[in-house]
Amino acid sequence: MNRLYHFPLSPFSRKVRLTLAEKKIEVELVEERYWEQSQEFLRRNPAGKVPILRMDGRFLPDSLAICEYLEETVPDPALLPGKAEARHEVRRLVAWFDGKFNDEVTSKLLGERVFRKLMSTGYPDSTRVKEGAKAIKFHLDYMAWLLEQRRWLAGDVMTLADFAAASHLSCLDYISDVDWDRSEAVRDWYAKIKSRPAFRSLLADQVSGFPPSRQYADLDF
Amino acid sequence: MNRLYHFPLSPFSRKVRLTLAEKKIEVELVEERYWEQSQEFLRRNPAGKVPILRMDGRFLPDSLAICEYLEETVPDPALLPGKAEARHEVRRLVAWFDGKFNDEVTSKLLGERVFRKLMSTGYPDSTRVKEGAKAIKFHLDYMAWLLEQRRWLAGDVMTLADFAAASHLSCLDYISDVDWDRSEAVRDWYAKIKSRPAFRSLLADQVSGFPPSRQYADLDF
Repeated sequence: MNRLYHFPLSPFSRKVRLTLAEKKIEVELVEERYWEQSQEFLRRNPAGKVPILRMDGRFLPDSLAICEYLEETVPDPALLPGKAEARHEVRRLVAWFDGKFNDEVTSKLLGERVFRKLMSTGYPDSTRVKEGAKAIKFHLDYMAWLLEQRRWLAGDVMTLADFAAASHLSCLDYISDVDWDRSEAVRDWYAKIKSRPAFRSLLADQVSGFPPSRQYADLDF
Repeated sequence: MNRLYHFPLSPFSRKVRLTLAEKKIEVELVEERYWEQSQEFLRRNPAGKVPILRMDGRFLPDSLAICEYLEETVPDPALLPGKAEARHEVRRLVAWFDGKFNDEVTSKLLGERVFRKLMSTGYPDSTRVKEGAKAIKFHLDYMAWLLEQRRWLAGDVMTLADFAAASHLSCLDYISDVDWDRSEAVRDWYAKIKSRPAFRSLLADQVSGFPPSRQYADLDF
């Protein structure tokens, strides 16, 4: 049986969970409190991060490397388009969300408001929370701008870029940190992706001590 | 003519320069002081980062997305192996150096000692410099451990993983922050990669105000 070591509110884990579910690859989910850095966990991934996929007898770390591996070994349905320029655009946007968005928004909102408490590293830094709350507006506007020209974030088909973005936004929506009234285009995009069967497992997530927001699992938010 | 907007001591730019040179793709280098965030630069890449490749009439940002694009459009010589598991291992290590190594080492040593001055953001934070100097030892030992089992970092052929690692280490070697005496395996590996024709342009780099270390361009260091 394939196994995914993950954490429910890790957007990187979520991107892989969505990819696995979309490709109908069955997997047993194992919740890993990765910040505790157990010896066994570090043996599987010396980088000390989730997700790690156990598949084909190997431990495969790194969310993007995993998704590329799945795309190559289970190509159907495709989450990267065929043409090199279109594939570049998908990868550019995955890097945008997992790099820039994560640094400017996720690590500041989710990092301060949830992970500090989970990891017992003190009180939230309110300056960082404010910076995150400001930065998410720029990012939602950028997404709206893309979605004015395209059906999905990277073009006219759903790709890994949509999964990367939805992974971060769904974690932030869990703690009510997304203003869905800011852009109708972004709300419609999220409604489409949220209603996919692949999203169901994410909407059932619960982290002890942090109940999900009221609209989190609501398809009609 | 292809054009690469880069900065000499950006390891992300260097990874792309090595890939272009190895694949014998001619390119005009344009130095970009990306932290000044000029309007024109932000139009090319709203993420505000180098490198950006101008090729086939497009502006292509993000170093890994560029390298994947080049691998797909100019496949020879290959910098990713053929098998999915081997490709995963390359991508895992690229993420290791561009993520973990960059956060723990490059951003702390090069970031504090060079970029603070270039960007006029104050004095180096000596705590961060000390953390970086400590962390690089762990990383060199990890590389040594890999190189005891393999000819190159990701396996028996040279790949993008070697270019990612050499890009970070060469920037740190520019400021004398690599202890080459720590591991013979790492030194031998770096000597091999440093002597490739693709490396020449990097060894000629100069950043005003920061002369390179004595051994920086020396192939017999």
